[in-house]
Amino acid sequence: MAVTSSLTAADSRSTSLDQLETPIPLVDLDRLERNLDRMAAYTGAHHLALRPHTKTHKSPAIGTEQLRRGAVGLTCATPLEAEVMALVCDDLLLAYPPVGSVKLRRITSLPDHVKLTVALDSVESVDQLARAAAERGKTVGVYVELDIGMRRVGVAGAEELLKVVRVVADCPALVYRGITFYPGHIRGGDTLPEQIDRLQIDLHDTLGILDRAGLRPAVVSGGSTPTVWRSHRIEGLTEIRPGTYVYNDRVTALAGACEWNDCALSVLATVVSTAVPGQAVVDSGTKSLGREPSGTIEEGFGSLLDRPDVTVARLSEEHGILDLRASSWRPRVGDRVRIVPNHVCIAVHLHEAIYGVRGDTVETAWPVTARGRQPLLAAGSRFSALH
Amino acid sequence: MAVTSSLTAADSRSTSLDQLETPIPLVDLDRLERNLDRMAAYTGAHHLALRPHTKTHKSPAIGTEQLRRGAVGLTCATPLEAEVMALVCDDLLLAYPPVGSVKLRRITSLPDHVKLTVALDSVESVDQLARAAAERGKTVGVYVELDIGMRRVGVAGAEELLKVVRVVADCPALVYRGITFYPGHIRGGDTLPEQIDRLQIDLHDTLGILDRAGLRPAVVSGGSTPTVWRSHRIEGLTEIRPGTYVYNDRVTALAGACEWNDCALSVLATVVSTAVPGQAVVDSGTKSLGREPSGTIEEGFGSLLDRPDVTVARLSEEHGILDLRASSWRPRVGDRVRIVPNHVCIAVHLHEAIYGVRGDTVETAWPVTARGRQPLLAAGSRFSALH
Repeated sequence: MAVTSSLTAADSRSTSLDQLETPIPLVDLDRLERNLDRMAAYTGAHHLALRPHTKTHKSPAIGTEQLRRGAVGLTCATPLEAEVMALVCDDLLLAYPPVGSVKLRRITSLPDHVKLTVALDSVESVDQLARAAAERGKTVGVYVELDIGMRRVGVAGAEELLKVVRVVADCPALVYRGITFYPGHIRGGDTLPEQIDRLQIDLHDTLGILDRAGLRPAVVSGGSTPTVWRSHRIEGLTEIRPGTYVYNDRVTALAGACEWNDCALSVLATVVSTAVPGQAVVDSGTKSLGREPSGTIEEGFGSLLDRPDVTVARLSEEHGILDLRASSWRPRVGDRVRIVPNHVCIAVHLHEAIYGVRGDTVETAWPVTARGRQPLLAAGSRFSALH
Repeated sequence: MAVTSSLTAADSRSTSLDQLETPIPLVDLDRLERNLDRMAAYTGAHHLALRPHTKTHKSPAIGTEQLRRGAVGLTCATPLEAEVMALVCDDLLLAYPPVGSVKLRRITSLPDHVKLTVALDSVESVDQLARAAAERGKTVGVYVELDIGMRRVGVAGAEELLKVVRVVADCPALVYRGITFYPGHIRGGDTLPEQIDRLQIDLHDTLGILDRAGLRPAVVSGGSTPTVWRSHRIEGLTEIRPGTYVYNDRVTALAGACEWNDCALSVLATVVSTAVPGQAVVDSGTKSLGREPSGTIEEGFGSLLDRPDVTVARLSEEHGILDLRASSWRPRVGDRVRIVPNHVCIAVHLHEAIYGVRGDTVETAWPVTARGRQPLLAAGSRFSALH
């Protein structure tokens, strides 16, 4: 398989894993490429537009690889993610309501080459965006967001959706580009097919109502990583926005949406104490791994890449407590392990840079450019927001 | 009360809270100063040395304020924390075993003006530190760490402690400076006095054993924020290392170790959706607030500074779901709230900078300088570790 172009090291000097200080996030480049290729092949085969969510990687280097493989654009959650991805992409979806004048000004100040679409779920946020766009003489696209059972954001029900769609369609500064939903409440497991079927029926009814009003959406955008491989079963769906699939994680593997050996990202950690029997302490805790639930009855906050039966049973800020009771393995102080975190989007956000490896060789690294909040244009002046 | 010198804004232009983009961490400067003063007064009154843990703030500006109020030195967990605090402090404790050659080289490369002490809990880590110090012609102090019931790190029991102390005392490159423990398993509540009494008895026995061996420690270092106000009841204790007290948080308040109005740090957030009845969604989620348990039967991941009955019941990466069922308050899209996080050390680590406010005026800001991992000396070259 070809080496991804933007992830190739700038020179031929290589570094071994031993030279890296822990805790540090590693990505297996072969697995990353396989994950990128697999999703591109799936969406290509089923004629689904792929608009990956960049919250998982927050790196233009990975965004570029997604676009090279046919993604129609990228999805962002924060203004900084949009500013950073605008460096490599002309077609961005902000899948988050930009409420408040500061955020609206920032979003409507994205470079002119960007075709921007924003997902909204209320008449108030539609009005605010329309005013901000008009003030700048810009036109912004809108997806109206429908709640399909997660109960987080999204208007409740097709009639309410139609109401917001009408407001958007009537607004000169906005372009009605479609509808969107996020099936974040569907976590996989045995009932996944039934849950997808139910989603299918709800969506069919909703599209019928929009259709009869003459407002059939050009784009129907959905898709999370756990549900992604069944996207082609959802009639009417035109676009998906998976994020986690690039790196995958323990939650995704436990949900059955990837195999364990598709987990590309792990946190390299060092055993720092074996003083307490039945456990080993590593130098990766909440501040490098995150404290995310497994999403299943499986306990722990991550498990070892090469020994999935060994889990991180407890966490402090800089300590991970490996539970050794299910294993005959007994590490020594100084041994190194690679931990697959429960939720990779959180683990990535905790680090400045990601290190790309093949085997025990570190080939390259890329910064987590969009992990902060401050505007990209003010990067040289950390506190410019204040003055 | 005097304004803290290093936290005064460089110029007189002030910014109002409205001009800040959310989510953003705010510190009430009056409360911060009161918290700093109270701990200085307590340790002064009881002749306890105060060596605050800087993991909470990771900012030299706050470290400076702690030293100005009489702290004997600062405590760090990571090499970067030590490098950053060396900018403002001559006496550092690394309360974390530096295992592995990369980390040891970094720790023994701290500037010569720093009197360094390292907390260790195994003969292996003592040997490694001794070799690294000798290679650089340096002398490093050691506290030997005792597990007093938390079962994380620390040698188990006085006899094992004595064994490690003997190795340290016999090592030319090391100086035996004392013993240390961390009562992180004592979380407060009604049984706090009994738990402290039991700790007192265990410590008395341990000190007796060291005394009879002619190895009585010059320093006995303990203390977490939940136990801190009873430190003077622990006979033999000479030093405490609280961290959280500067900002405080919901866990500390629920544990009874501070009042609600001692919580100095909150995350300013904006209501972005009220589409689902009985709740409101704000733009602060796991990536700005952290997903930390409350440590009690109280649910939620934080609660509103001005309405503690409103809790953050659920979290996504960029969404916090406020549970409104216990409140008659009904916010609108665009309203702003201030959320006190469960665990402030985690919330701080998620942000680039902290904004200091009095009332609705932003007076100043300071960077969370030590939140990364890469060496300070290589700050200009993000990937210098690779080449």
